[in-house]
Amino acid sequence: MNISLIGIGNVGKRVLEIIRDAQSGLRERSGESIKVISASDSRHTVYSENGMDVSRVLEAKSRGDIRKSGYRELVFDEIFSLKTEAIVDVASATPDGIAGRDLYLKAFGAGKDIVTANKSPLALHWEQIMDECKQAGRRIRFESTVAGGVPLFNLRDFSIIPSEVLQFRGVVSSSVNIILNDIINGRSFESSVEYAIKQGIAETNYHDDTLGLDAARKTVILANALFGTNLTLNDIQYEGVEGNMDKVSSLKGKGGLYRVVSSIRKEGSRTSVFSGIEEIGEKDPLRALGNESLGYTMRTDMNGEVLVVGLEDTPLETASGVVNDIALLAKTRA
Amino acid sequence: MNISLIGIGNVGKRVLEIIRDAQSGLRERSGESIKVISASDSRHTVYSENGMDVSRVLEAKSRGDIRKSGYRELVFDEIFSLKTEAIVDVASATPDGIAGRDLYLKAFGAGKDIVTANKSPLALHWEQIMDECKQAGRRIRFESTVAGGVPLFNLRDFSIIPSEVLQFRGVVSSSVNIILNDIINGRSFESSVEYAIKQGIAETNYHDDTLGLDAARKTVILANALFGTNLTLNDIQYEGVEGNMDKVSSLKGKGGLYRVVSSIRKEGSRTSVFSGIEEIGEKDPLRALGNESLGYTMRTDMNGEVLVVGLEDTPLETASGVVNDIALLAKTRA
Repeated sequence: MNISLIGIGNVGKRVLEIIRDAQSGLRERSGESIKVISASDSRHTVYSENGMDVSRVLEAKSRGDIRKSGYRELVFDEIFSLKTEAIVDVASATPDGIAGRDLYLKAFGAGKDIVTANKSPLALHWEQIMDECKQAGRRIRFESTVAGGVPLFNLRDFSIIPSEVLQFRGVVSSSVNIILNDIINGRSFESSVEYAIKQGIAETNYHDDTLGLDAARKTVILANALFGTNLTLNDIQYEGVEGNMDKVSSLKGKGGLYRVVSSIRKEGSRTSVFSGIEEIGEKDPLRALGNESLGYTMRTDMNGEVLVVGLEDTPLETASGVVNDIALLAKTRA
Repeated sequence: MNISLIGIGNVGKRVLEIIRDAQSGLRERSGESIKVISASDSRHTVYSENGMDVSRVLEAKSRGDIRKSGYRELVFDEIFSLKTEAIVDVASATPDGIAGRDLYLKAFGAGKDIVTANKSPLALHWEQIMDECKQAGRRIRFESTVAGGVPLFNLRDFSIIPSEVLQFRGVVSSSVNIILNDIINGRSFESSVEYAIKQGIAETNYHDDTLGLDAARKTVILANALFGTNLTLNDIQYEGVEGNMDKVSSLKGKGGLYRVVSSIRKEGSRTSVFSGIEEIGEKDPLRALGNESLGYTMRTDMNGEVLVVGLEDTPLETASGVVNDIALLAKTRA
């Protein structure tokens, strides 16, 4: 499996490390090695026709310039004409998802599959991306767009094939939930955000998280992928912490457990979709989630109700979801 | 995907029902329809070259004789020369697993893959079955041998491909745990067993469950499939309720939560394997399991620790695991 990697940040670095460290297991379990033909950060693209030694790329990146790997530099757009089977997008995305969308469409046109961890393109341009993917006879996998490395879309596609999904409820965003928890426990909004940024949990531009936008994007992808809708971020109801402080403040001292939950449910021919604050009662399966776990419960017609929790949520698990998607493309090649 | 089904009991009937009711979803998500070319119960085999209408088989079975379906009868051994790609074994097994093993070897020799829900062949003849499968270039899937329909081996094979499994802890057998719970809550062994049989939870010949043998077989399959061992039932330590009443009685009134747990762990180059009673502490992720749920936690090197719980455990979920295995053979055909 020959790939081009775009993005060598927190997740991208770990993608390269996993490809380096798990090479023999990956080959054994997917039937193929993963070769990184090109790698791009926001400034440069380096490449080798026969696959790069990823250690050299990582080492050069740590020295501030991937060209120090000694591999040949390419103009970014040349990646579409390389002999690769997939483009892996773990770059930081623009909120409008347009750059991502255009990248994927161009990749499909060039006969390449996509693996992505970027939410905006799918949350805003789902229908177009999926239509063009299908028409081009290509594939797109996006496990790590939602709930870090918790098996979700891959579990749906490979472990409960006979089932229709009837209901999904999940805690799929860390940051907003950690901040929500802090505020309910007495911190001010400002101080919770500051603390979350210091811990590396929230980004400096934290509004996507605190407004509930990040969770809402994930909810849209969940609805589209699991329930067959064609929604965009503009079609659904959502709430977060920022702009919702009356509700959040009213929860203080009540002693309940509250989370920003993605709730999606079939109601006859309709699909109801909401991303917002819900109480997690004593008997709720989501009670199994610790303060920093992500997870969900999925009710199906043939496989009963399944609860899945990732007890850790770090860039490693997210990166492992990305590498798993690459391996799946190899393992299920038609 | 053309199959021969062996066994039309509790699970087998639901396999046929799922194939009937989920046909379009199965085709959409696996790329192929499942056609039942032959079906065998303990007395007869019926067949149709182009695939049978499973409703007719189910209806005939409910009238006590599958030949009443009107489909042609075959001698059982003729199934190996049918134009099928897989044999699906959901018949009741002999405890020594020999009939199952011989069936699988014969199937591999005839160029057919195996899907099985039967534990004994794998718990007692793992190495031989896997060796001959590999040599014949065939595949065997066995999701429903352990923990009913809870995604487990399929999750391992398709959702955490980059990872090595470092530790597994799971509650994978219902019956022994329901009986254990009853006894700790004050019932006698005899009365618990009687109650479990009446509820359809334990079999009339209940010793496999109460001795912990059923859980031990599953533990062996788990160790072999997830940790690469080649163990048989004779190699591992296990305990149940029967023959272990001193320990069980000592747990009464302590207020703890106790379960028969499959515990497998890498310790350097060794793999430690135990199936027996453990306390599930307040902070234990397995605490999320209700009294009648099955589930497990799996610690990995790249995907963190994942908790998976099937909140229902009925023959429907087990059958769905079997049908999922059939669909996977279609979806991942080389």
